[in-house]
Amino acid sequence: MEQLTVKTKSTSYGVHIGEKVYDLFATEYKDLLDNADKVGIFADAAAASYHLGKLEQALKKAAIPFEVHVLPAGEDCKTADNFFSCHSFLLQKNFTRQSILLAFGGGACGDLTGFVAATYMRGIPFLQCPTTILAHDSAVGGKTAINMPEGKNMVGSFHQPAGVLFQPDLFTTLPKREVRSGMAELIKHAIISDADWTESLLLNSDFPYFSAEELPAELLRGIRVKADIVAQDEFEHGNRKFLNFGHTLGHAVEAYFGFGKVSHGESVMIGMAYAFLMSEAYGGITKEFTNRFIRFANHAGYPMRAILDVEFKPLLEFMRKDKKVSSGDLVFVLLHSLGNPFTEKVSEIQCEQSYHDFVSRIKEEV
Amino acid sequence: MEQLTVKTKSTSYGVHIGEKVYDLFATEYKDLLDNADKVGIFADAAAASYHLGKLEQALKKAAIPFEVHVLPAGEDCKTADNFFSCHSFLLQKNFTRQSILLAFGGGACGDLTGFVAATYMRGIPFLQCPTTILAHDSAVGGKTAINMPEGKNMVGSFHQPAGVLFQPDLFTTLPKREVRSGMAELIKHAIISDADWTESLLLNSDFPYFSAEELPAELLRGIRVKADIVAQDEFEHGNRKFLNFGHTLGHAVEAYFGFGKVSHGESVMIGMAYAFLMSEAYGGITKEFTNRFIRFANHAGYPMRAILDVEFKPLLEFMRKDKKVSSGDLVFVLLHSLGNPFTEKVSEIQCEQSYHDFVSRIKEEV
Repeated sequence: MEQLTVKTKSTSYGVHIGEKVYDLFATEYKDLLDNADKVGIFADAAAASYHLGKLEQALKKAAIPFEVHVLPAGEDCKTADNFFSCHSFLLQKNFTRQSILLAFGGGACGDLTGFVAATYMRGIPFLQCPTTILAHDSAVGGKTAINMPEGKNMVGSFHQPAGVLFQPDLFTTLPKREVRSGMAELIKHAIISDADWTESLLLNSDFPYFSAEELPAELLRGIRVKADIVAQDEFEHGNRKFLNFGHTLGHAVEAYFGFGKVSHGESVMIGMAYAFLMSEAYGGITKEFTNRFIRFANHAGYPMRAILDVEFKPLLEFMRKDKKVSSGDLVFVLLHSLGNPFTEKVSEIQCEQSYHDFVSRIKEEV
Repeated sequence: MEQLTVKTKSTSYGVHIGEKVYDLFATEYKDLLDNADKVGIFADAAAASYHLGKLEQALKKAAIPFEVHVLPAGEDCKTADNFFSCHSFLLQKNFTRQSILLAFGGGACGDLTGFVAATYMRGIPFLQCPTTILAHDSAVGGKTAINMPEGKNMVGSFHQPAGVLFQPDLFTTLPKREVRSGMAELIKHAIISDADWTESLLLNSDFPYFSAEELPAELLRGIRVKADIVAQDEFEHGNRKFLNFGHTLGHAVEAYFGFGKVSHGESVMIGMAYAFLMSEAYGGITKEFTNRFIRFANHAGYPMRAILDVEFKPLLEFMRKDKKVSSGDLVFVLLHSLGNPFTEKVSEIQCEQSYHDFVSRIKEEV
């Protein structure tokens, strides 16, 4: 089992990856769970159908009673209605301020469960038990949220989990598209931190799925990048913005198509390619690199051509609602070079010009 | 102008009371407001109809542009629907993470606005501009929340305001019932902190409305009690529970009748009388004092007889959902003596017996 500790000003907690990670319920997390008067599992339907038995078995083995609440799988669960039905579930089952939640599912399930935990009776603890590769990103760092019709993650809190438990054999049942979505965030962690690591990920023109032996170490490496940044800047006043590389356009693409239709990681991959193109002008990325990245992404199955018929204007509307927007300017994370990100205010007109260039570039390259 | 500073681990902020308090927008709060890219006023309809002009004028004088969103007055505004319509308003008006909110209204408006501020894009600052006496309590201390059908303040956050600005001449238009509701929390602050102060408040068998000159000092005294407790225990792990004196049964009474039908302060007054009666057995309060308190409350216009036909069972259901409940026991704040509160777990059977005694006592006394 591999692990690291995330340290913020207010708290610190462990991230654990390995085959027998749920055994920790009977050891490291036993006191936390025993001291809670009730334990609630919020499980997404997809993860629950394949794997909930593993979690339940581990809790039973540790003699910890629990209640289960099943949520729709994927981004669809992060609605106002689900947020309040989760709260009603907890109230009707007499959960108190001494209770604890477990999020069992993908990133969306973790985001929703975390926001419910942040706000139930003004805050109770929760554990992240992510079941997807994508959630290696979202489960760490304490960002919780739900979506609004106007945009993604618009309503939420910073609420750090009490621990993150990754059991990588759950990933074996993930559809390829979900694996692809998750790898996008891993690639992002490489891009903003380390040129060599990035090149090694892009080396294989077939998509690098990794073996079951290699994946935990790669994910832990991604999590370490994030943990180091979160330790410095929990509330995203500064460097934490770098973790949003690719997300300004990415969130807009995701919202434009309707959450879930182009997946989060797929949208971020498109957004990262756009950020590379912008970095040609504002930073130090070469045209050749951007083109290589676009071809790599396309070959790995990311739907780069999805935006060919999308006008800039509706995307701009979504980007204007981006949380990084400051006084009407759009703020992008760009790159001096691989591993050296910076933030840049870019005018809407310049964004539009870059977008047209981006569409042409995709047409040429893929 | 009178003022004090509330200090918590994470932040500190000023509480100001006086005729010209909104002049601070042009001085002490000028930088904060100028640095925000947008300023939003969430005003309750009742306060807005009488007094919004005063707030608007002060902001205009300080050259600060703003948007106004009017909410229903009273506890009715603290719904899931209003919570999300506030967020939609902010998104549609392009508020960002650099924006700020002003809560202008009673305690309910402050609770809702604070919770919206706590969660909009994971948190933006807000100022409390309370317009009722009751809000002298709720505007300070950072508790924000909305109600669920299952109970009051069940979903919320701790989110401290950036400042609290009380203009007491707004109170002149408050209906008597609203004044009465507010005075209940002032009396509570006296009861949990100071026997002599409590006696002075109960001395006048006519309800003590105070003159416009005396009121600010009395309110500040109440706020100081609260500020001292919040400074020690921001997240209510310990002594902050004392501020809930009278609120365990109080919240249940309020929820039973439907929020707003018996006002918050009226319900708390009934809850405090019940806590006095319980303190006869578990603490050091005399039967004579409880009876005097019941007669005082009745004479001052609090609807003590409202509960004569209310069964214990439905109230118990609401109390079970109280946030102070721990592992199924009910937890009450009781008194060794005036000024000396403590918390006590009481069995449901004992609570029921005390409730029957309480109903008989009210029948005898009023």
